[in-house]
Amino acid sequence: METTKVSTVSAIQAVKRKSGKTFAELAQETGLTNVYVAQVLKRQARLSPEAAPKLRAALPGLPEDLVHEMMEPPRRSYDPLLIQDPAIYRLNEAVMHFGESIKEIINEDFGDGIMSAIDFFCSVDKVKGVDGKDRVVITFDGKYLPYTEQKSENMVSKQNKE
Amino acid sequence: METTKVSTVSAIQAVKRKSGKTFAELAQETGLTNVYVAQVLKRQARLSPEAAPKLRAALPGLPEDLVHEMMEPPRRSYDPLLIQDPAIYRLNEAVMHFGESIKEIINEDFGDGIMSAIDFFCSVDKVKGVDGKDRVVITFDGKYLPYTEQKSENMVSKQNKE
Amino acid sequence: METTKVSTVSAIQAVKRKSGKTFAELAQETGLTNVYVAQVLKRQARLSPEAAPKLRAALPGLPEDLVHEMMEPPRRSYDPLLIQDPAIYRLNEAVMHFGESIKEIINEDFGDGIMSAIDFFCSVDKVKGVDGKDRVVITFDGKYLPYTEQKSENMVSKQNKE
Amino acid sequence: METTKVSTVSAIQAVKRKSGKTFAELAQETGLTNVYVAQVLKRQARLSPEAAPKLRAALPGLPEDLVHEMMEPPRRSYDPLLIQDPAIYRLNEAVMHFGESIKEIINEDFGDGIMSAIDFFCSVDKVKGVDGKDRVVITFDGKYLPYTEQKSENMVSKQNKE
Amino acid sequence: METTKVSTVSAIQAVKRKSGKTFAELAQETGLTNVYVAQVLKRQARLSPEAAPKLRAALPGLPEDLVHEMMEPPRRSYDPLLIQDPAIYRLNEAVMHFGESIKEIINEDFGDGIMSAIDFFCSVDKVKGVDGKDRVVITFDGKYLPYTEQKSENMVSKQNKE
Amino acid sequence: METTKVSTVSAIQAVKRKSGKTFAELAQETGLTNVYVAQVLKRQARLSPEAAPKLRAALPGLPEDLVHEMMEPPRRSYDPLLIQDPAIYRLNEAVMHFGESIKEIINEDFGDGIMSAIDFFCSVDKVKGVDGKDRVVITFDGKYLPYTEQKSENMVSKQNKE
Amino acid sequence: METTKVSTVSAIQAVKRKSGKTFAELAQETGLTNVYVAQVLKRQARLSPEAAPKLRAALPGLPEDLVHEMMEPPRRSYDPLLIQDPAIYRLNEAVMHFGESIKEIINEDFGDGIMSAIDFFCSVDKVKGVDGKDRVVITFDGKYLPYTEQKSENMVSKQNKE
Amino acid sequence: METTKVSTVSAIQAVKRKSGKTFAELAQETGLTNVYVAQVLKRQARLSPEAAPKLRAALPGLPEDLVHEMMEPPRRSYDPLLIQDPAIYRLNEAVMHFGESIKEIINEDFGDGIMSAIDFFCSVDKVKGVDGKDRVVITFDGKYLPYTEQKSENMVSKQNKE
Amino acid sequence: METTKVSTVSAIQAVKRKSGKTFAELAQETGLTNVYVAQVLKRQARLSPEAAPKLRAALPGLPEDLVHEMMEPPRRSYDPLLIQDPAIYRLNEAVMHFGESIKEIINEDFGDGIMSAIDFFCSVDKVKGVDGKDRVVITFDGKYLPYTEQKSENMVSKQNKE
Amino acid sequence: METTKVSTVSAIQAVKRKSGKTFAELAQETGLTNVYVAQVLKRQARLSPEAAPKLRAALPGLPEDLVHEMMEPPRRSYDPLLIQDPAIYRLNEAVMHFGESIKEIINEDFGDGIMSAIDFFCSVDKVKGVDGKDRVVITFDGKYLPYTEQKSENMVSKQNKE
Repeated sequence: METTKVSTVSAIQAVKRKSGKTFAELAQETGLTNVYVAQVLKRQARLSPEAAPKLRAALPGLPEDLVHEMMEPPRRSYDPLLIQDPAIYRLNEAVMHFGESIKEIINEDFGDGIMSAIDFFCSVDKVKGVDGKDRVVITFDGKYLPYTEQKSENMVSKQNKE
Repeated sequence: METTKVSTVSAIQAVKRKSGKTFAELAQETGLTNVYVAQVLKRQARLSPEAAPKLRAALPGLPEDLVHEMMEPPRRSYDPLLIQDPAIYRLNEAVMHFGESIKEIINEDFGDGIMSAIDFFCSVDKVKGVDGKDRVVITFDGKYLPYTEQKSENMVSKQNKE
Repeated sequence: METTKVSTVSAIQAVKRKSGKTFAELAQETGLTNVYVAQVLKRQARLSPEAAPKLRAALPGLPEDLVHEMMEPPRRSYDPLLIQDPAIYRLNEAVMHFGESIKEIINEDFGDGIMSAIDFFCSVDKVKGVDGKDRVVITFDGKYLPYTEQKSENMVSKQNKE
Repeated sequence: METTKVSTVSAIQAVKRKSGKTFAELAQETGLTNVYVAQVLKRQARLSPEAAPKLRAALPGLPEDLVHEMMEPPRRSYDPLLIQDPAIYRLNEAVMHFGESIKEIINEDFGDGIMSAIDFFCSVDKVKGVDGKDRVVITFDGKYLPYTEQKSENMVSKQNKE
Repeated sequence: METTKVSTVSAIQAVKRKSGKTFAELAQETGLTNVYVAQVLKRQARLSPEAAPKLRAALPGLPEDLVHEMMEPPRRSYDPLLIQDPAIYRLNEAVMHFGESIKEIINEDFGDGIMSAIDFFCSVDKVKGVDGKDRVVITFDGKYLPYTEQKSENMVSKQNKE
Repeated sequence: METTKVSTVSAIQAVKRKSGKTFAELAQETGLTNVYVAQVLKRQARLSPEAAPKLRAALPGLPEDLVHEMMEPPRRSYDPLLIQDPAIYRLNEAVMHFGESIKEIINEDFGDGIMSAIDFFCSVDKVKGVDGKDRVVITFDGKYLPYTEQKSENMVSKQNKE
Repeated sequence: METTKVSTVSAIQAVKRKSGKTFAELAQETGLTNVYVAQVLKRQARLSPEAAPKLRAALPGLPEDLVHEMMEPPRRSYDPLLIQDPAIYRLNEAVMHFGESIKEIINEDFGDGIMSAIDFFCSVDKVKGVDGKDRVVITFDGKYLPYTEQKSENMVSKQNKE
Repeated sequence: METTKVSTVSAIQAVKRKSGKTFAELAQETGLTNVYVAQVLKRQARLSPEAAPKLRAALPGLPEDLVHEMMEPPRRSYDPLLIQDPAIYRLNEAVMHFGESIKEIINEDFGDGIMSAIDFFCSVDKVKGVDGKDRVVITFDGKYLPYTEQKSENMVSKQNKE
Repeated sequence: METTKVSTVSAIQAVKRKSGKTFAELAQETGLTNVYVAQVLKRQARLSPEAAPKLRAALPGLPEDLVHEMMEPPRRSYDPLLIQDPAIYRLNEAVMHFGESIKEIINEDFGDGIMSAIDFFCSVDKVKGVDGKDRVVITFDGKYLPYTEQKSENMVSKQNKE
Repeated sequence: METTKVSTVSAIQAVKRKSGKTFAELAQETGLTNVYVAQVLKRQARLSPEAAPKLRAALPGLPEDLVHEMMEPPRRSYDPLLIQDPAIYRLNEAVMHFGESIKEIINEDFGDGIMSAIDFFCSVDKVKGVDGKDRVVITFDGKYLPYTEQKSENMVSKQNKE
């Protein structure tokens, strides 16, 4: 199946390359964030029925069977060696070195819970720093999920069992 | 901090041992599932203000400072060598061998999403099999979380930025 | 051999896709749990002589040689990278974080033993939570296996030797 | 908890050393296999109420609180570096190199199932080879466990749910 | 040295706990981001001479020798098991699954370069989503660093050598 | 070279499958143990000149070039993922959990040495347990190898050097 | 994509081999360091528009589509087994054994910061040692990057948000 | 137990250091190879009853209880980080890079078998090279162990069983 | 490139097999050690211009392009799974268990330095042991390399820089 | 032994801290490179008899027993987690990404050989880049070691044997 994913993604990428469009332009035309539209084109996210016509319009070279495959829930995965690329290592470095602080601030400001990575938005933006130089701004915006207290009376599956 | 957790948990376990009560009894007295009350006693889950008086009543030997510590959000962790114990390995074996099937059934029956491990209940029950022998029944009951389609217009953090 | 398994499974999946049937429907028609019928179609479980005609009826497009191969004991395996998919990671997270509690409750409620992963049932169900939202319920139901006390007089292979 | 296990085992070993008895003698006096009695003394197996008086008789120096601890279900574990010792590596080498053949012979001679490691006996014996030299004979004797076909009608936990 | 770091950090945390202040309050009083002030208190970032008096004012219980140690460049590190905590795993999951898309968008929008993790800001914020629910917003803001083309004439160390 | 081994083994397996014979029958006809004859057919052991005619007689479909290749010393290897299969994992579990006890019993009963995995026999047998149920009996029978005391006068290669 | 990189690099290497030119000569003709020109030919660095005509002149056999591909930002990666080669292992050994000293000298001589691996030069040179024998000199020359103090007022992305 | 080994070895090393003797001298006085006497002092080999008086004579400061402990079969082990030391890495490098050639030469010159690491001698010697410079010569001298053909009639443990 | 190496080596091996010559004979005819000539045929060592005509004479079937490729410096590597083969594992076991002793004897007898694995010889020999049985003797013979004291005045590259 | 190293190093570091001297100053006073003097103080390199008096003069607070220990050959090692620190990771990143190019340039410019990490110098310097900004320059300067062709007639240890 993984082999299938690889060849699907490489077919989609070829269409994008031929179109000459950037992810920024595709984001604009589909109303999706730039990161999300890239994920859709890598089969890391599902193309919704609502977004499909917009993508077809933006990338008219996309064959219909690819569009259909893109509408299926993908198996999400990544090449573990990806972390060798410095652009990606820096992200990982930040997360691992800042992770404990981020967790404790979530605990203080929200309670005992986490940021969802499913009900989640991500975008990449360009801003000028105080020194006038370009800066990369990556935003992770996820729903706060509090840990449920597991009371027996609220465990519906258990209610049914008894 | 990990060292702190180890000594806290071992103090709590000593109180439980002295009380002579089982997790089943503690679950009954606190209204929590048996797995969850065990997690609270291992500092893998936070003791809620509502459940604290019930636990104090169930385990009167519990010192007040331990009760207070149990009400803080814990750092959740586990000993990776735990998987050597056959009782725990079998669970892991089931998850890894059945995982792909479970994922695809979720996709077919619910859509493109996952079972939450945060808004989540777990319990262990005993039933008689068709051969009259004891069976262990473990129930995982988690909220279905659909993947969000990341539309720029819905990304509130991005709205604010512009 | 692994290569053989991959191509067998992909042939079976193609038949299922063409049939348009879900695992739920196949479970209904074969009398198997939804997870188990998915395992059979992934060559993670053996198709029994009794179930074979029902599966043939449910998936008439299945070539006879595939049916025969499905009746052989498979080598059970999984792609270790599977754990990257969030739907599967959450399951693993639950098992590893709750594992020690589950083991101790089995010890208290059953004795010194484990839940079998061989004499074992698994299913995925959909229920409504107390908030009316969909929840995924995964049930692991395995025979309780007590550790044998290894008395020399009960070790038949040793009796024969002397 | 692991630390507790280490100090318990080292106290038990000291008693054994002082007694001057071998595992063979302890096996004889308790009616257990030589491997199993060693496992009990390492807290890798539980001492049964029936065997406890025999062990007390065989090792009168054993303090009563250690005997009680030995009657609790242990957390089974091992030091992963153990495999460096050549005596243990050779066992592992045999299992990994012969494993696939053993599995296929079980399939041919018994069916689709495994040898239980729970309902299981193990012993070490000394025999003379055809060349008159000493040979180590290790016997693994485990119950055959066939994979259950997961029929919905036999899944008791599911019956209860509906 | 690592041991030193552990005991330093635990002393600092005790002071913070006694003060009853949150990271948000400390950030406010020191003019630092909430994540950065947490990093300073975990010895993952150096306390600057300029910020030191503000931190002393905010945490008057901080002994002077700790303040001095906090002004030294730390060895940056993290416990690899940290990733077991769901709050931190979700961050890692997002980075690894979205990483390739983020890298390619940086390439399209900025050129062949990376986001610095050294000239870098990080903060955690709380916003309301379009459904009125709380969301965690984590911002990574790092200087764009283009890869240098390594022309011999610009390699000053080489010029000196010849 | 590994690729060669894979294709050789798969050709041999095809011959066996066509013959309809089990490893038990092949063991009977060649005078080898059931595990060993399986190892020969997987190129994990060398076919001896003495056994070759018996194997040719047992499997007349075996091409002569395969027979010749089977008579070469193989590179012994295994797929590390093999351990995922429960039948093989249980063996590994037993070895790792019982290993230290087995080593110490060898030390007590034989001296400071090991069980050879080279001058070694292995077989799988079926017996009825005391409860009348089938049991799998795996026998490891290896020559006892005592560690040599390395006296300079016995080191022949050193004698020659001086 | 990785597969694409492998075949691109092997095509480029073939052109170089045919040309009979060394990296030293290519460095001379392009004005790049010898290590950098090798990186460009391995798709580990991007060929700049300015350098492209010089490389075309130096390697006239290079097809135009390869030149264009070489001008795209590459995914930077390496084969982890590369470290087996003694020439590369020695480099890694030096870095790991000397790393802590290098870090502390940077801290003493520059401040709390690092050597950039992005704004970075590398070259290999040959010198005669004091004993008149050849020595390999590898120079790493990277911009000093001081850690930013994360003041809220300087976090532009945050300013925009409020 | 490992902790015991560490403190035993460190006590033995202290005696050796005080004695001022080298391993070469101890080898001379005990009649053991230099490597073996070092192994005995590191509890990686057992001190034989025959060698004990010679070692006592060579190291009169050795307390009698240490001598007795040295006469027990040790658990053989090593620190996995040992491989970081360049002197030890070079050995490992040689073995891994030359291993396949060594194996094939053993096959050609001896047959299908291995060099024993149990009936084994090892020594370190100093010679002058053809250039008059010092060279380290390490000799591994182990008994050739041919793989046994596993004939059922020679498997004594199996004979007994039937 | 690795793929190239695999196919080159397999072509060379085929020539050797056809010639019917052993490594011992090739060593004799080329004047190289038996291990080294095997390394040359596996592209783990470079064929020197001086040895090339002798190898051509010994293996007349060797195509000229292979001979040329064999004269290039190879990338040295090995399959990490090689260590599964018992013949190779025993070597590794000896190195890891004896390594620390070997290092300390080098320190005592030579000084602070190592055995080179580059200016290095290796051979496999057959001797009769004191019991008249065959023994495998592996000799590692490497130049002693003392660690250089890094005096600034002797660092030529640094002299040039100032 | 490792524990000894840790406490020795921490005692030496305390002396250095009290002295208020930098590695640059110590290098100046001892005539060693800055990296090497740091290695000596971390017990990663041996203090030579010639350098000892200079170090004693530079750090008069150094107790004599520490000086003596520093003159012994150390076991060279490093904490594998060191690579988490960004200053050290960047070095490793450079080596792994540039390694293959460096190796091939050594092959082209010197022949089939490597840079020694034993007869080796390392220093850290500060230069101004073409943009006037500080740059870190790390120099690795190691003797070129050509691979020896292993001719039997040059293998002295083998000559002796015959």
